[in-house]
Amino acid sequence: MSNPSLLILPGDGIGPEVMAEVRKIIDWFGAKRDLVFDVSEDLVGGAAYDAHGTPLHDDTMAKAQEVDAVLLGAVGGPKYDVLDFSVKPERGLLRLRKEMDLFANLRPAQCFDALADFSSLKTEVVSGLDIMIVRELTSGVYFGEPRGIFEEGNERVGINTQRYTESEIERVARASFELAMKRDKKLCSMEKANVMESGILWREVVTRVGADYPEVELSHMYADAGAMQLTRWPKQFDVIVTDNLFGDLLSDLAAMLTGSLGMLPSASLGAPMANGRPKAMYEPVHGSAPDIAGQGKANPIACILSFAMALRYSFDQGDEATRLEKAIEAVLADGYRTADLLGEEGRDPVSTSAMGDAIVAAL
Amino acid sequence: MSNPSLLILPGDGIGPEVMAEVRKIIDWFGAKRDLVFDVSEDLVGGAAYDAHGTPLHDDTMAKAQEVDAVLLGAVGGPKYDVLDFSVKPERGLLRLRKEMDLFANLRPAQCFDALADFSSLKTEVVSGLDIMIVRELTSGVYFGEPRGIFEEGNERVGINTQRYTESEIERVARASFELAMKRDKKLCSMEKANVMESGILWREVVTRVGADYPEVELSHMYADAGAMQLTRWPKQFDVIVTDNLFGDLLSDLAAMLTGSLGMLPSASLGAPMANGRPKAMYEPVHGSAPDIAGQGKANPIACILSFAMALRYSFDQGDEATRLEKAIEAVLADGYRTADLLGEEGRDPVSTSAMGDAIVAAL
Ligand SMILES: CC(C)[C@H](C(=O)O)[C@@H](O)C(=O)O
Ligand SMILES: CC(C)[C@H](C(=O)O)[C@@H](O)C(=O)O
Repeated sequence: MSNPSLLILPGDGIGPEVMAEVRKIIDWFGAKRDLVFDVSEDLVGGAAYDAHGTPLHDDTMAKAQEVDAVLLGAVGGPKYDVLDFSVKPERGLLRLRKEMDLFANLRPAQCFDALADFSSLKTEVVSGLDIMIVRELTSGVYFGEPRGIFEEGNERVGINTQRYTESEIERVARASFELAMKRDKKLCSMEKANVMESGILWREVVTRVGADYPEVELSHMYADAGAMQLTRWPKQFDVIVTDNLFGDLLSDLAAMLTGSLGMLPSASLGAPMANGRPKAMYEPVHGSAPDIAGQGKANPIACILSFAMALRYSFDQGDEATRLEKAIEAVLADGYRTADLLGEEGRDPVSTSAMGDAIVAAL
Repeated sequence: MSNPSLLILPGDGIGPEVMAEVRKIIDWFGAKRDLVFDVSEDLVGGAAYDAHGTPLHDDTMAKAQEVDAVLLGAVGGPKYDVLDFSVKPERGLLRLRKEMDLFANLRPAQCFDALADFSSLKTEVVSGLDIMIVRELTSGVYFGEPRGIFEEGNERVGINTQRYTESEIERVARASFELAMKRDKKLCSMEKANVMESGILWREVVTRVGADYPEVELSHMYADAGAMQLTRWPKQFDVIVTDNLFGDLLSDLAAMLTGSLGMLPSASLGAPMANGRPKAMYEPVHGSAPDIAGQGKANPIACILSFAMALRYSFDQGDEATRLEKAIEAVLADGYRTADLLGEEGRDPVSTSAMGDAIVAAL
């Protein structure tokens, strides 16, 4: 049997730096645990635009469709702000999500004990927090037509379309119930059914799918109330499922609750491929952080934890994923901190690569 | 000159209870400050549905168009969850906003010193917080067409339309710059211009209007980053302007930062009427709280502060508004707390009407 394949797309800003640390981890698993991956690397985002005039080359897209999993760093930067919408770095990312049909975006918001003080929220509100937001990722207002800026009378109008079919809602709902079954069996679905018809359909379909999961306690919440409740007492939630746009805001909010954005991974999963593995892309929740790029300041942990998610969800190596997560916890407990994990304390931060090395050593 | 007119719409749940306290305040201003209002009262939401089969009777709508200001309590309740979308309590509220053309929804998020501990955020993150969110209230996905649930092939699809014209963006931007001029001269505009064309137009128009306000420091932020930054360090903001849907989530999030939802008022303003006063509706940010309705537990302060906003924005009585706000601060400093403002402490809460009486006494 051939080795499982990984396509690495470091992207822009701190993407290449954090991905370099992930490669150390991948190498360690190959050398020490006999988990050898066929790794290839390519361009996405601004880096791809600089090379090819497009944020994602067709060849790269084709490769992404063939591999077992894609690992992405981050895209974007001020240099590309002037570009036309159609070739902005983000379009590369959105094209990957859409063409790979990665409909279920799993975003854990987990608070690491060693870092609980770092949150803007009171320690008792966030310590031990462990929730999972499932964001629909291939539809809704991100992709709905019609869209654009049109002339209307003597002025222009900006239009986007929120659009969900029953089957789109159904598949992400099912993925969320499955996940809830493996966790605390509690699922909260968020929409604005009091204002939006697409939210009414969302609620109806999620409720219908719920009939297949009688063990899961299903609740519904308006997304504005959801934002409030996440802020007030996030531990009331286990799994949350919501649409693409609400998921964008709510998962970022949930991420910030933990106080350590540089720690949070994500998985974007699609339908099973012929080999049984889901189409999958893994990426840190943080952005390309152009302000600190190239200075060895970035925290590689979110990207390394994204690889741990790949081990778990793509390669059925849950034990190895846990091994990696434990190594990271150990390194944090030992006091290793990149700059983003230090408050006012006068301590010196460790560099991106020193953090990667420490994790390898802990493994 | 005839007295200024007020239409009171208590609505559902705790609406009537908190509004009863506002009437005490209105009476006090009439008796002691010679500020006499012509007050009329009518039904909205579920209460209107129960009486007329519609959440807002045409006669009530007509009255709202004629008065100098509308004061609304809250709408909705579980009893009405089964109703068709078109007659749900919320539709009454949305019709008022739309037909009165109340495009600028001002939602202050202010942290009261006496209550800073009550937030889920660290005290230093929220103490002294005083930001103003201006939410566009008459357009966007709340009202855009096409909308509905349609058959498509062998399934249904839920559709809503995000839609903003240049003039819609321009007027709310202008209102926000005007407000920023009276405050700290800092305005942050939030959208998703990286994903939505309507966000691109939004950013362009806000920037253009900004040229008329060179003293105001204008910044732009993606709405997901905005949710994060509000959670991380809300004091970085002064005035925030955003669209109807983002504003719904972000203003609720900002409200929850303060930890005391029962304290937060809002003003929804439209164009000037013939008498120079803006079309206006004032309402607390909190909902109808059906779980505690009718028990004398509700906090009337948000609704009373909404009346203070009416004094300031509709009746040019800024000094009287300040007088009322100071009375509320005094009552809080004296330790008066409704149930929502008490934590684990073993103190007894004061009732809704005792809180109203205390504020009248403090005046
Ligand atoms: C970069 C941007 C297009 C993207 C999104 O809006 O989905 C990002 O915010 C995210 O959440 O992954
Ligand atoms: C009740 C509901 C229709 C309303 C809204 O979504 O605008 C409420 O959440 C608000 O923010 O005033």
